[in-house]
Amino acid sequence: MIENLWLIGIGTGSPLHITGEGMQALRAAAVILVPTKGAGKDDLAVIRHQIITASGTKAQVISFEYPVRNTALPYIDRVTAWHDEIALRWQDALRDARNSGPVALLVWGDPSLYDSTMRIAERLSPQPHIRIVPGITAIQALTAAHAIPLNTLNGPIQITTGRQLRARGWPVGAETVVVMLDGECSFHALDAEGVMIWWGAFLGMDEQVLFHGPLAQATESIETIRTTARAEHGWIMDTYLLRRM
Amino acid sequence: MIENLWLIGIGTGSPLHITGEGMQALRAAAVILVPTKGAGKDDLAVIRHQIITASGTKAQVISFEYPVRNTALPYIDRVTAWHDEIALRWQDALRDARNSGPVALLVWGDPSLYDSTMRIAERLSPQPHIRIVPGITAIQALTAAHAIPLNTLNGPIQITTGRQLRARGWPVGAETVVVMLDGECSFHALDAEGVMIWWGAFLGMDEQVLFHGPLAQATESIETIRTTARAEHGWIMDTYLLRRM
Repeated sequence: MIENLWLIGIGTGSPLHITGEGMQALRAAAVILVPTKGAGKDDLAVIRHQIITASGTKAQVISFEYPVRNTALPYIDRVTAWHDEIALRWQDALRDARNSGPVALLVWGDPSLYDSTMRIAERLSPQPHIRIVPGITAIQALTAAHAIPLNTLNGPIQITTGRQLRARGWPVGAETVVVMLDGECSFHALDAEGVMIWWGAFLGMDEQVLFHGPLAQATESIETIRTTARAEHGWIMDTYLLRRM
Repeated sequence: MIENLWLIGIGTGSPLHITGEGMQALRAAAVILVPTKGAGKDDLAVIRHQIITASGTKAQVISFEYPVRNTALPYIDRVTAWHDEIALRWQDALRDARNSGPVALLVWGDPSLYDSTMRIAERLSPQPHIRIVPGITAIQALTAAHAIPLNTLNGPIQITTGRQLRARGWPVGAETVVVMLDGECSFHALDAEGVMIWWGAFLGMDEQVLFHGPLAQATESIETIRTTARAEHGWIMDTYLLRRM
């Protein structure tokens, strides 16, 4: 039984992204629950363990294995079934806990932004008290790396996903669009006229790669950079900002 | 002359919001430039000094005074003139610098989100190299405090300002809207039907106040809480998330 579950945002790849609050929470946790690896991403497992070590926590570290997604199901059903299964695996893993007290999970980026940990946590029974520790998101790592503002002066910002961009095109009336969770360079489908792109992958990590320019000229370059980097590392996570100038 | 200017995001009120990278940057800076006070907000000056002290930096701390905004000018001109004047004041203040090396500024929230520091820095001549250290934003402090996700599953997010909300109403097609820089409870003007609000002020600080509920019933409560808290502290900064359910 988990009474207190702490979801700690750890940023996007630099162990220095973690906040003072995140470090304190890791030290105060009784148990830290970590995936054996994150979908083939050993690099991410290494960063998680660097952060745990750097915190100096005495918490018991317990690992669980992510289930495989059932690709036969439609998108929403597949995600739902996967979340149900992860919640069960957390509960199974915690049967081995020596310590009682707060259970911590390290969450990539910020637990509130395009992350499923909070939704998985809602499946636990009895429902634990959930504490969120915010962390640096890929959006922030992207704008920091390019040294650009996210918004124009008093301008609105649209944050969306690759899936949404493919289904709906450029969001109506938007000036600044940030795209996340896009494994398919969905900017291809857009009318590139007058649009600038600021793109980044492995943001915050030593492997960070950046590119920016007019979208019309950038599309091919980004695809090439992306393919090369992905082949080299075996995985890639990228994010980009589009702005109508 | 400033060769290297570091804009360090310090989060929204908790000295524990600062990241490991932010702490390292404060320690590595030669000079830290701080406003004498931020528009009457002594509480914020206290937090800035707490962070500087906690970092253990040996940087020279130099203060500058914010100019007064010329309210006779229209909005954009007023902002532009104010930014020009601040850039001059930074340069004046730095004439007293004993140390040469990177100059750091502590920026509320994240330097990329609704913050003018980067735009002011672009006015410096010669143009320094600008480094951005991301920090926790009021949006993240809000969703963490309420323990809610920012987005629905695969759903887009619109971030906007009170000024935009008043001028344009509910953003076309939006499901989740975050409103910042709103001193006027601009949610008043919206059709509240089916909209939930998660509101917060003094986010991350000991004084943090939260409220959430259906917008139709929340409007009056939030106004009352806001008026009381503002009277008590002499200032208020609030942020809210609206979601069509």
